[in-house]
Order: sequence, then C-alpha cells, then structure tokens
Amino acid sequence: MSEPTGLAGEAEKLDAADRLAAVRGRFVLDDVTYLDGNSLGALPAHVPARVEDVVRRQWGELRIRSWEESGWWTAPERIGDRIAPLVGAAAGQVVVGDSTSVNVFKALVAAVRMAQADGGDGGGGPVRDEILVDATTFPTDGYIAESAARMTGCGLRPVAPAEVPKVLADRGERTAAVLLNHVDYRTGRLHDLPALTAAVHVAGAYAVWDLCHSAGALPVGLDEHGVDLAVGCTYKYLNGGPGSPAYLYVRRDLQPRFDSPLPGWNSHAEPFGMRSDYAPGSGAVRGRVGTPDILSLLALEAALDVWDEDGVSVAAVRAKSLALTDFFLRCVAAYVPDGRVESVTPAAHAERGSQVALRCDDAGEVMKRLVERGVVGDYRAPDVLRFGFTPLYVGFADVERAARVLARTLAG
Amino acid sequence: MSEPTGLAGEAEKLDAADRLAAVRGRFVLDDVTYLDGNSLGALPAHVPARVEDVVRRQWGELRIRSWEESGWWTAPERIGDRIAPLVGAAAGQVVVGDSTSVNVFKALVAAVRMAQADGGDGGGGPVRDEILVDATTFPTDGYIAESAARMTGCGLRPVAPAEVPKVLADRGERTAAVLLNHVDYRTGRLHDLPALTAAVHVAGAYAVWDLCHSAGALPVGLDEHGVDLAVGCTYKYLNGGPGSPAYLYVRRDLQPRFDSPLPGWNSHAEPFGMRSDYAPGSGAVRGRVGTPDILSLLALEAALDVWDEDGVSVAAVRAKSLALTDFFLRCVAAYVPDGRVESVTPAAHAERGSQVALRCDDAGEVMKRLVERGVVGDYRAPDVLRFGFTPLYVGFADVERAARVLARTLAG
Repeated sequence: MSEPTGLAGEAEKLDAADRLAAVRGRFVLDDVTYLDGNSLGALPAHVPARVEDVVRRQWGELRIRSWEESGWWTAPERIGDRIAPLVGAAAGQVVVGDSTSVNVFKALVAAVRMAQADGGDGGGGPVRDEILVDATTFPTDGYIAESAARMTGCGLRPVAPAEVPKVLADRGERTAAVLLNHVDYRTGRLHDLPALTAAVHVAGAYAVWDLCHSAGALPVGLDEHGVDLAVGCTYKYLNGGPGSPAYLYVRRDLQPRFDSPLPGWNSHAEPFGMRSDYAPGSGAVRGRVGTPDILSLLALEAALDVWDEDGVSVAAVRAKSLALTDFFLRCVAAYVPDGRVESVTPAAHAERGSQVALRCDDAGEVMKRLVERGVVGDYRAPDVLRFGFTPLYVGFADVERAARVLARTLAG
Repeated sequence: MSEPTGLAGEAEKLDAADRLAAVRGRFVLDDVTYLDGNSLGALPAHVPARVEDVVRRQWGELRIRSWEESGWWTAPERIGDRIAPLVGAAAGQVVVGDSTSVNVFKALVAAVRMAQADGGDGGGGPVRDEILVDATTFPTDGYIAESAARMTGCGLRPVAPAEVPKVLADRGERTAAVLLNHVDYRTGRLHDLPALTAAVHVAGAYAVWDLCHSAGALPVGLDEHGVDLAVGCTYKYLNGGPGSPAYLYVRRDLQPRFDSPLPGWNSHAEPFGMRSDYAPGSGAVRGRVGTPDILSLLALEAALDVWDEDGVSVAAVRAKSLALTDFFLRCVAAYVPDGRVESVTPAAHAERGSQVALRCDDAGEVMKRLVERGVVGDYRAPDVLRFGFTPLYVGFADVERAARVLARTLAG
C-alpha cells in the first residue's frame, strides 16, 4: 500500500486545477462523499425556490391560467430543447414526459412499425419480425422490449452488444429494431454508438438507444451518428430530481412516420379541438401522451440551468469524468489489497462511462458499511459495488477518500 | 329577471348552514370565483411546505436514502390506498402513477387479454375481438382505445353509453372490453355505473371505467358494483396539482390475471433482483411501470390530507355538490334571459356529475369575458361553457355571483 498522503496531495492539486470545481457550489452537498449521482443526482441549490414558485404562484395563484401564462402546456418540448444539445441533437427532436420504460415502449413499437412499413414499400425481402435487445440491459428495457415484440408480432432476441454486428450480418434482413444501452448500468461499459448504429442501418433496421447512463456525462452525438430513436432518464447526470420525467428523441426526418402506440390527446394536431378522430401533431410533440407532470417537469427545467454556467459543457464534463475514474482506479489499486476487488469497468477511455464498478465478495454488505462511513455508492446484484462520478459536483478529494474508506472497510 | 338580492340572500343562508364551509380555509383562494376545479383543483394551503420538505430534505439531504427512508419506493401503493376509499375500493387495489392515457392503455389491453383468455378456457363461443368505447368520451380515451384495439387485434366500436346494453345484447359475445366515462367531461352527465357494469358482465366482457370527472365529487362504489378496472386523474376533484399522476384500479380477484402491456421493472416481483426474466409482482403493484415521479406523487399525497378533516366525506361532498349545481341552475334561470343559454347537464340528480355545462352561442368569447370579470370556468369546443363545482371550496355565494356575472356578460 503506497503512502496515502501522496494521492491525497495529488487530489488537492487536481481539485485546484479543476475548471469545473466552482460548479460544485451550485449543489446542495454535505460531508458525505456522494458517488451515487448515477442513480439520483444531487439537488441543485436553486431548484427549491423555483419549485416553490411553481407551487405557490403558478398553481396556487394563477391556477388554470398557468397552462398558457406559465408555459406549462409547451414545457415538454421546451425542456426537450434544453436537453437536446446535451445529447447532440438539434432543437425540435426531443420531448420530455413519462418514464423511461414508457418511452422505450413508444420508441420500439414505432421503430418496428417503420421497419415493417419499409418492407411493405416493395423491398421484397422477408418480413422484419425480430427485435434485438442488449442482453445485459437494465432489466426494464428487456421487459418492455418483450411486450413490444409480443404486441407487434415480433420475436425478441437478446444479444450482447459486441455480437450485434455479427447477428445483423447473419439475420439482419429479419431485424426490425435494435435496442441498446449507451452505457451498461452495471459495468459502466460504454458501447460504440456510432459503429453499432451504422451496423443497424446497413441491415436496414432502426436503432433505439437508451441514454440513461450516458446523457449528461459524455458526448452522445445523436444527430451526428444518425441515431433513429433514443430515450433516457433525467434524474441521474441531469439532476432532475427523484423520478423526474424521461425524454424521447425522434430524428427529425422520421417524425412524420412516428406512429405512437400511446397516441394520447397531448400528441394530437389540435389537442383542444376535442375531435373523436386522432390526427397526430407535427414534430417531437408526437411523442407526448397525456397531461404532463408539471411539478417534476419544471424542477427538471430549473436543474438544467446548471448547464448554462460558464465553462460547463459536455466536453468539459467528459474530460473531468475520465480524469475522476482514472484517478479512482489508481487510488483503488494503491490502497486496496490485491485480489480483494476487480474492476469490471473497461480501462480504455473509449469504452468507459462515468462510473466504476468493482466486483467484490459480499458487495451488498460492503456497500452498507461504506454508506455508514459516509461514502455513498450503490450495490447491484449479485456482486457489484457501483460508484458514479458526476463531474459537476464530485472532486478528486472525494475520489481519494472513497478509495481510502473502501480499503479500510475491506480490511475489516 | 327576479331580484338578485333574493338569491344572494339565500346563498348567504346556504353558506351559513354548510358543514363543509370551513374546509374552504384549507385552500389557497382569492377573490376569483373559481369554477374550474374540474380541470385543475385549487392548491391546498399545506401542500407547499410539504413539497419543500420533499425537495430540500428528502431529495437534498437524504438523497438516494429517501427511496427507503422517506417511503418513496412504496408511494404508488400507499397513495393508492389513500384514494381507494374515495372511489369505494378496499385497500390493495389502487396504484398511482403515469398519466390517465397510459393507464387507459394498461387497463384496456389487460381487459382484452382476460376476455380472450376466458374464451380460450373452453367457452366455445366466438373470439372476443371487439372493444366498445363511449362515443362521447374525452378524446384521449378514444385514441388510446383505438391503439389498444389495433395492438390486440380487436375492432373498436364507439357506442353512446345509453346504447351499450342494446349493443351488448346484440353482439356482446364478441365484446372483450367496454370503456366508459363515469361522468361525461363535456355535458356533466353521470352514467349509470352499476347498471352498465352489470350489463357488461352479463355479456361476459370486462368493464373499464374512467373516473376523471367523478372521483372526489360523488360516490363511485367500485367494489360494491363489481367494476373490473378503473382509471382516473388526480388533479381535478382530488386537487393533486398540475399533471399529478393518475391511478389504476384492478379488482383484487383479477390481479393475478392482470397482464400489463407495460411491464416495467417497478412491477416486477423482485425489482432489485435485476433479473432478465420478467415475473410480475402480486397485487396492485402490477400496475406500476417505471420509476415513480416523486415530487408530484408526494404533493398529491399531501393534498389528500384534506379528506381526513372532520366532516369531510364523499357523501357530504356529493350532497353539497348537488345543492350547488341545483342552485346554479336556479340562479341561471332567474338571471339569464330566456333562450340565451341551454343546460346540457341533466336535471335529474341521478344523472348529474359535479358540473353544469351550458350551451351558448359564442361560448369561447363569452368564457373569455367571464374570466376577465373574475369568474373562471372553461370552454369546451364547439359551444359549451363549463362550470365545475368543487364542494370542498366552492360556496353558494360563488354560485350566485357566477350566474349574476354570466347574465351581465350575456347582456353585453
């Protein structure tokens, strides 16, 4: 075990040189080392006052008038446009609302419908009746994909992301849609979105990406890489608050063909026309369903203000994220006895998200003791300690402390 | 036109005798006559402090620990159990989350699946492949029913609620599910839930009720009348706040057969087991989908405290509601020149919800002027002035004033 003061001293220097260090002051934090922002982002300090205004003035005083006067009605698209640059999308393609699970359902069913309509355009090939789903996906995507497959008459094939190109080469003519996670929730592995999207397109299928563990932590480049559809949550690296609504990206040129399985009145071309016939609106609004959840939406909108701070950008966040995870891996290697933990997060930057996952015996019990000692990560069954690094408010001293406390905890 | 002072004096006496009058003090109100609680309920005065605690302490200080320590994880069922008595349901059958539209989808698809499974049990009759939907429904229910029909291979037949028994007698053997509104959003007509549910059951189909415009305003009696599935919003007579989450009722004996089209991880038997195979949980939890929207859920939970006040009950609310709407119709008859408006809300108490809808030329323009004069109702295309009466905070003087201002407005 090397001398802690060495790494602690290095942490101090890294924090002093960190151009994002000042942003930490925008969040409510205490002496806990919070490495669970990949589960629930910390509270931006200005959000409570904004929520109070929404409740007391917009709801309490303006009441129904707020649907227009406080911009409630257009919030799903307006806030979508705030998220868009963070995932590399031009305006008009992201809409906020519903949970990630519900958005996965919308996106996958719509993708299958587009793929099957393409075939019907005289392609002459076999019917596209298979959905490929990331075999290591966060479970809800798999459950929802199974339902989408069942309800569209498709089969569902779980495939490891690395195997997707091979499976597509073998049987891609049957593939309608491919649902992948940008970053694996358990291991923190970053999948190759540009290459996988290109492989899906070569096969003539549609790529649906789940950005829950990447948006706000690293560049996504939805437009640049020609992604078809994407979904993500907003309560991790976007700090939107517990259960804040998810978002749906539909690439602009696909919007006229986006045929939602949940065509609620909010997606109608004329929602207050109260027409019995459904006619979808134009643009991202097609992804809306029912009445938007205003308190949570507007808390999220406030939280996104942090991204307007000087020096805050996805590029800056990514650079710091890699420095933080690199430093954590170094500290763990230095402090923790050999063989006690094993990183399942890739060492290569190109394959790493913004978390480090350590396989460990008794991981559940170890995490419990870490939390008692003020280092908050989380446990993912069956054997992973998960530490998330939100560059907006995690510093290098946090990283060094977490590794130090982990070593002490593992030592008994 | 009779002497205003007569009715104004009567209003004063009615307010003095009103046992719910004191509850008005629990809400944030001003000198506006707010008759739009059937669109967005007023703010209960204690809600802002509760929301502030959720934001500042539960999210800001406890962060991820709140999923357990602040009861976030179990909120959908816990708050469902608070709504249950208001709709005549025993505990364990209502779960809160998602929008009404999304819940209509869950309920209808699940109903069709149950109906088709019944047929497969050796019934020997024709396949049940038709959904009946209220022809005068709030549009979203119709749009979603069309999607549910399409995705389950059913036909969709719009039927006026009064015609449902006849249609079921004619072709009920083909009917899988019937989606009806308890109270018509436009006319305020209260449909006969017990008789219609019984007719649906005689046909061997499943009854799905939309309670948006009845829950919190009148007795529903879900358990008593053997309703199969029901949905409703919480931002009207339940005062949960803008876009607060909706709820889903699944009758207890049907829960083991409830096969959700949105089987998100929150409905899993072991949500943190992170298993790739889906296994539904037991009970109302099967209606859950993704991560619940905590800010809005807990604002709703706080709002429901009003129902624990002394003297507040659905029966008391219903009695006052009928008295308010009766009085409004009398005031309108007394003040408004003959032929200028026509009530499309039934005169019979058994057929009336908690609103009065007046057909009127230039209804949109008239409502705009009413709002300018401090009487807030709403306009529903093409020709209806809609006035909702929330007995928890609307008094008889409000009613008299609204009718008086309406008469003045119509007079030019």
